[in-house]
Amino acid sequence: MIIKGNFIFTPSFGQLTVLENSYIIIEGQWVKGTYAELSEEFTGLPVIDYGDDLIIPGFVDLHSHAPQFVNRGLGLDLELLPWLEKYTFSAEAKFKDLAYAEAVYKAVVVELWRWGTTRAVLFGTIHKEATAKLLELLARAGLGGYVGKVNMDRNSPLALIETTKQSLADTEEFLQDTVSRYALVKPIVTPRFVPSCTPELMAGLAYLAKKYQVPVQSHLSENTAEITWVRELHRKCQNYGDVYNQFELFGQQPTIMAHCVHSDAAEIELMAKNNVYVAHCPSSNANLSSGIAPIRRIIQQGVSVGLGSDVAGGHQVSIAQVMVATVQASKLKWLETQKTDDFINMREAFYLATKGGGSFFGKIGSFEAGYEFDALVIHNHHVVDRNQRSLEERLHQFIYIGEDRDIVARYVAGKKVDHP
Amino acid sequence: MIIKGNFIFTPSFGQLTVLENSYIIIEGQWVKGTYAELSEEFTGLPVIDYGDDLIIPGFVDLHSHAPQFVNRGLGLDLELLPWLEKYTFSAEAKFKDLAYAEAVYKAVVVELWRWGTTRAVLFGTIHKEATAKLLELLARAGLGGYVGKVNMDRNSPLALIETTKQSLADTEEFLQDTVSRYALVKPIVTPRFVPSCTPELMAGLAYLAKKYQVPVQSHLSENTAEITWVRELHRKCQNYGDVYNQFELFGQQPTIMAHCVHSDAAEIELMAKNNVYVAHCPSSNANLSSGIAPIRRIIQQGVSVGLGSDVAGGHQVSIAQVMVATVQASKLKWLETQKTDDFINMREAFYLATKGGGSFFGKIGSFEAGYEFDALVIHNHHVVDRNQRSLEERLHQFIYIGEDRDIVARYVAGKKVDHP
Repeated sequence: MIIKGNFIFTPSFGQLTVLENSYIIIEGQWVKGTYAELSEEFTGLPVIDYGDDLIIPGFVDLHSHAPQFVNRGLGLDLELLPWLEKYTFSAEAKFKDLAYAEAVYKAVVVELWRWGTTRAVLFGTIHKEATAKLLELLARAGLGGYVGKVNMDRNSPLALIETTKQSLADTEEFLQDTVSRYALVKPIVTPRFVPSCTPELMAGLAYLAKKYQVPVQSHLSENTAEITWVRELHRKCQNYGDVYNQFELFGQQPTIMAHCVHSDAAEIELMAKNNVYVAHCPSSNANLSSGIAPIRRIIQQGVSVGLGSDVAGGHQVSIAQVMVATVQASKLKWLETQKTDDFINMREAFYLATKGGGSFFGKIGSFEAGYEFDALVIHNHHVVDRNQRSLEERLHQFIYIGEDRDIVARYVAGKKVDHP
Repeated sequence: MIIKGNFIFTPSFGQLTVLENSYIIIEGQWVKGTYAELSEEFTGLPVIDYGDDLIIPGFVDLHSHAPQFVNRGLGLDLELLPWLEKYTFSAEAKFKDLAYAEAVYKAVVVELWRWGTTRAVLFGTIHKEATAKLLELLARAGLGGYVGKVNMDRNSPLALIETTKQSLADTEEFLQDTVSRYALVKPIVTPRFVPSCTPELMAGLAYLAKKYQVPVQSHLSENTAEITWVRELHRKCQNYGDVYNQFELFGQQPTIMAHCVHSDAAEIELMAKNNVYVAHCPSSNANLSSGIAPIRRIIQQGVSVGLGSDVAGGHQVSIAQVMVATVQASKLKWLETQKTDDFINMREAFYLATKGGGSFFGKIGSFEAGYEFDALVIHNHHVVDRNQRSLEERLHQFIYIGEDRDIVARYVAGKKVDHP
């Protein structure tokens, strides 16, 4: 497949590659290369010509809660723990009903597609059937992702609490059922967070992650009350991250930790050492009054970072909007640190939204040779602008004020993906 | 005119009135009253029935720069003063060309309409013809507003600097031309900000504001470098606000000051004493790394506050999105002040976005008897939600994740306003 257009991508953090009026050749699902001109062997072959449109890598969402999509915008005058109690848990309990789950998850898949998220790492609920259904719907839609059946066997409401044994048995069944079923959608081991998982459960989940060779996701150091609670539960651990580490859920398999708003240097160091990914969720961190994650320092200490919408702590599905929130939050952090922690600029945020999170999946999030071709074709219908703009300026306009309507085509792993 | 639906509005800061399945009677442009049932004298009259839709007051934008709409999302890795130099001034210089101005301003009016802004207080440029055209286009579209020809006679680029004499002469001509021309759109005296206005110009503008009985708008204490500059220019003044006050541009006529990010207690006190309005612009204040305005303290000290999109320091035209930014920024301020400055909750932000800013115009922004009927009819097409929600929850969903497509009708001063 040969596609023509204006390509923009970030091969490394802070570096932007802009290829005006160029070609990309895709073999199967992989990028063979980008070219200013087509060489002789390719002339005469059909070319999909997107004219003056922008073509950028698809967005990667490293952290979101699929069952909470229905709750976007609700209950945000609360902080994390009361918000979980009052809004989130009751919403998740409904996913026991598979028909309800299917109806909501169908809509979730449409929303992800609509906003240009081509790969997503999602929390489901404790319910293995509903969560398996979400994998099926994502796969059927042609999107990529990791989806986890949530585990929680302590400090949880009656409607969502599991016995340790049942939690592990259901997880193993879920993993067996899904681990090899789809090409682009895979299961991920998902202890909700330390307060809701007993030591036995965490140890059991680590065992399953290793046995089935699947990655792990959870939450880390989001809110100060949560951190205090974790310290009370695990007095011997150095920090919150160390709890996961003691139970081998902190990089022993590829691991994503969401938030890390209050991670100190030691916790960040442990993430760096263990190759743990951080899912940065700035919209959610503002909505739930969690704070601003020290994302510049986390990156400087060598941790891999991607962006997370964290629906429904975050209200925005759009990773472009999460990029804007990333840049805005980092500017306030820059002021807060007397301009010592440089803010994240738009090129850097674009990296985090594509290759930064994409690298968790493998060769995803760039147009370099050997990468899977995930792409969005952008036509700025709705931008009011009578002026000639550079391609980079047009990218900025799309990120800041573009809409789903401006995404005119989506590709995942070399295939065009239409409305699910 | 009789309209039926679910009405939501805020008669006072923090107080929400929800009238399910009710009626509003409008006489001319004014609300006569809201009713659970229609009394006998009105039965049999035609009713516009919006069924289960929400009906809320139209949004009021207290601060935006119409010529900068084309620049939304551009140059936001800079702070205020270099951003003005590099992006803003060159964009504004183009408005010398009336045909260009008309093309852009037509699009601006559509954008305001689209996002449900029924009243807007706008900066134009120094060009009196282009600015008069903007008033004409707003009036023709049926929207309400104040629009200012900008004044700047020092520290400005060659393409935008005026002589003091010309600046005052053009302003007077502009005022004479527009002060009585339209019912809902009026001129406003608009010194850009202290650094770009000589003492002679400020004194002359105060004279004109008084002579023509028109209000005043400008910028105040947005950025620390700007404040230092103002202090150097006016060493005898107590603070930035005191400069305007010395020249009688600080409440001697109704006055709006945008930003006030770094206003101290004395400056806030002077605003309260002089009945100066603050236009709170949280999106812009984050984008340009200005900081978070102490909006809770400003309100507590008795200052009237409304919201401003501040395009193009702000990238969002939508005042709903500015409400979200207001709540988010205030939560970070709450954390920064060790939870002493309470955050702004959604009910309070809704007040600021409607009656708070609307009161600058008169009886605007509420459905109480005697108010002009400005309204938006909201049908949540795009909200994924399979659950029964309260009307207040549906309002939250619209504010956080609603779109222009969800606004199915707009009214200004009792008249339905269609796509311009």
